[in-house]
Order: sequence, then C-alpha cells, then structure tokens
Amino acid sequence: MKTKLKIVKIGGGIINDTTKLHSLLDQFSAIEGKKVLVHGGGKIATTISHALNQEVEIINGRRVTTEEGLKVAVMVYAGLINTEITARLARNNCSSIGLSGADLNSIESIKRSVTPVDYGFAGDVKKVNAEAINLFIKNSICPVMCSITHDGNGQLLNTNADTIAAEVAITLSEFYDVELLYCFEKGGVLYDMNDDASVISEIDHVAYNLLQKQGKVYEGMIPKLDNCFHALKNGVTAVKVGDAHTVFSSNMGTHLKQVI
Amino acid sequence: MKTKLKIVKIGGGIINDTTKLHSLLDQFSAIEGKKVLVHGGGKIATTISHALNQEVEIINGRRVTTEEGLKVAVMVYAGLINTEITARLARNNCSSIGLSGADLNSIESIKRSVTPVDYGFAGDVKKVNAEAINLFIKNSICPVMCSITHDGNGQLLNTNADTIAAEVAITLSEFYDVELLYCFEKGGVLYDMNDDASVISEIDHVAYNLLQKQGKVYEGMIPKLDNCFHALKNGVTAVKVGDAHTVFSSNMGTHLKQVI
Repeated sequence: MKTKLKIVKIGGGIINDTTKLHSLLDQFSAIEGKKVLVHGGGKIATTISHALNQEVEIINGRRVTTEEGLKVAVMVYAGLINTEITARLARNNCSSIGLSGADLNSIESIKRSVTPVDYGFAGDVKKVNAEAINLFIKNSICPVMCSITHDGNGQLLNTNADTIAAEVAITLSEFYDVELLYCFEKGGVLYDMNDDASVISEIDHVAYNLLQKQGKVYEGMIPKLDNCFHALKNGVTAVKVGDAHTVFSSNMGTHLKQVI
Repeated sequence: MKTKLKIVKIGGGIINDTTKLHSLLDQFSAIEGKKVLVHGGGKIATTISHALNQEVEIINGRRVTTEEGLKVAVMVYAGLINTEITARLARNNCSSIGLSGADLNSIESIKRSVTPVDYGFAGDVKKVNAEAINLFIKNSICPVMCSITHDGNGQLLNTNADTIAAEVAITLSEFYDVELLYCFEKGGVLYDMNDDASVISEIDHVAYNLLQKQGKVYEGMIPKLDNCFHALKNGVTAVKVGDAHTVFSSNMGTHLKQVI
C-alpha cells in the first residue's frame, strides 16, 4: 500500500489576506504525514506592476506576461509569497523548502505558442521531476511550489498554479496515494455563484458537463475543474475543492468523483 | 581527508551586470566537485524601492531595512536574483536549489538591536543549520543562498551576504575542506583603490591591521576582510578575494593568510 500524500493548492483570495493565509498555514502545518503546498499569486503582482507603471494586459480572461511582468511575477511568487510561506511554516516547526521549477529542475515547461494568442512568457508544464520533489518528501520536508517554472534554457516562465498542482499530483501518484485539495475563498463548487451556501457536495464528470451546458459553472471554475478531473483520470486518488475551513475536514467542500 | 568544498560569494557589482553574471555562472557551473553559491543584492532593490516611492535611508553606510524595504529585499534577493541564478545553472546542467534562511531553517538570525542605531529588519546570523545545507551538498546539488534569513518566529530579516558566506563556510568546515571565494568587481584587495592594477596578492592579519591604520583599506572592504579573517581563524582552509576572472584561477586575486 502506498503512503498517503496530501497536495494542497492555495488560491489568490487566501494569499491576499494575511490573516486567512496564516490561519491556513497553521492548519496545514498541523497535518501529519507527507504533504506538498502549491501556491498562486494573488493580487500583489498586479499592485506592484501598477506601482511600477507597467501595463497589465488581459486577453480572454488571462493575463499576458510581458518581460517586465515576468520579473514582477518572479519577485512576488518565487520571492515574497513563497518566502513568507516558508518562514511561517518554519515558525510552526514544519520543515519546508520553497521551490520554483528551476530548483533541481523540478518543473520544466514550454513557452506557450504565440498563435492564436501571444500570452508572452507563459509556460505550459512539460515535465515534473518526481525524483527532485521526492528528495524532500521522503526526508519529511514539505515542498512549497510557486507558479514559476523554466524552459531548461535559462528562461523563467509564468505557469498556472492549478495546473502545476494537478501535474505534480499526477506524477507523484506513481509513488504515493495522492489526495489533491484545491483551497480557495469559497466553500466548494457552487450551484449558484451568488449563493455561498449552494455548495455541491459531490460532482462527477457527467454532472460537470451538464452544469457547464446549463451555464451554471462560472468561468473561473472551468479550468480549475478541468484540472481536477484530469488529475482524477490520471492516478490521483481523491480531489476536493473548498475553503480553508472546509478543505481539511472530511465531510465538507466539493468532492470530485470519477464515473466508473 | 575531508572532501573539498568551494563556497563562492558574488557581489552586487556582478549581479547588476547580466553579461558578467551569466559569464560568472557559466564558469561556476563548470567547477567540478562540491560547491555553494551565496549572493547579495545589487542595485535592483534600490531601483525597485525608488520606483515604489519608498525612502531609502542610509546610516553609517548601511541601509536601514524598513517593513516595506524588507518586502522589496525579499522580492529581489529571494525572488528575482535567486531564481534567475538557479535557472541559469539549470541551463548549464548544474543542479541547484535556491535557499533563503527559512528553507529547512537553514539560517536562523536575530533582529539587530535598535540601539545605538535602529537598522530596522536587519538580522545577524545566529545559527547555520549544517544538516539542512548538507542534504543538498551530499546529493551533489548546489545550494544558492540569498541574504534573507528568518528569526524562527515567522519574521524574515535582511542579512549581510558576506557574513552569511563566512558563517556557512565556518559551519561546513567541520565536514569539508572549505575554500571561500569572495568574487566582486575588483581584481582583489587594492593598495590604491584608484589603481585597479595595485592588487595585493597576499595579505595576513598583521598587514591588514597596518594597512587599516594607514587608511589604505577603503571603507567597504573592511567588513569584507573582517569576514575573511574571521573565517580563516575558525576552520576555513583558504580565503580569496578577486573578480570573476581571477577568483577561479589559482595564482591571481588576493589570498588571505593567517599568521601562524
């Protein structure tokens, strides 16, 4: 039987709120057993970009990563947020290591094609280096992975954190019994995005497709849920979506189910 | 006989110049055997602080680290510079890991006393965690250490990179035959700071004290040389100061000698 491994991805809404972030990190530190943390960026990068008079261009709801914007992303994701997280975990005697994809070549990515849309220095995951990440996990050190990867030729790339979490979960599921937890500001996937109480407790791919057709899955959730089902189909044992309070308790949040 | 370990500290003058930095990193990648890189900050943090309209206060030649200035230091040192270095090393197939002091609790520091001068969030090294750093070295992974440490209670602190290099060298000299190389923009310690050709090839503590009395050691070099002699007195085998070109070649640069 494989050893259990929890992979927790925390979203921008939590990162933007220091009190919520510290509370989540304190709960995370208390989790026994093997674990990995993956984090996105939050609003800080946009704030810094604006302060530096950089234009922030959004196409199809996705931010374009210019050369200057990439520097800000690296500073904020790999620098500020990642280091503040490891310092908080160290305070809680949770030994951790902050990682970008360039560390031990842990995540190599490919710069996204400039057609049909040029998203700039955005990278899509090419390879997760299981051996590198496992060096830490097997030594009871928690990897804290940010959404900066590299192309193997010295170029850093801005990469979607939800996708990183899913790809890391899939790769590590060869060695571990992986539970993937997406932690964001809502209690789970909602039937009605205006009603925080309308959490769907369980959803499979058939129901998800139906909800999508009915226009009931709001836009930002689609790539997240696609990542969830992708992970479930590729060896990850369990996937759950919820807020900091519900995601660590067994009966709350939204449990993703594969149709057998 | 202990295994040899090279610890290379690179200064701001090199970090400010991408061409020089890449050239040094390419030379560093080619070094065979066990190695550690320590880097300071350069001018980028000051540029970002100015762009963010932060005041940069200098007292006695040292920068005061305000709360906002600390965030910039963490972004630039632990984020931008550290990650760009690891990406360049990865390109050269030199497996490396970027570290702040919070990673694996590798360097714990103490916030400097606010009397007689309040330098803000400046930290003095309290403890180097040899076991943590050695996990990488023994696995042939090169630690890339930035000048951000932590106090063990969740507070990050800005710490002098020359001191970090010396303290890491001293701690690791228990396990390795350590050579400490300070790499900056000059060819070595100069007799005459206005004459780049006046490199002192060898200096011991007696000669250093004499030069200091004669006012021939310029101000910025004093803490660096103090760190060098401190390292030599505490177990480090060899210490050398020079530029990117001379520091890796055996007969150039300034060799520090202990008086027996």
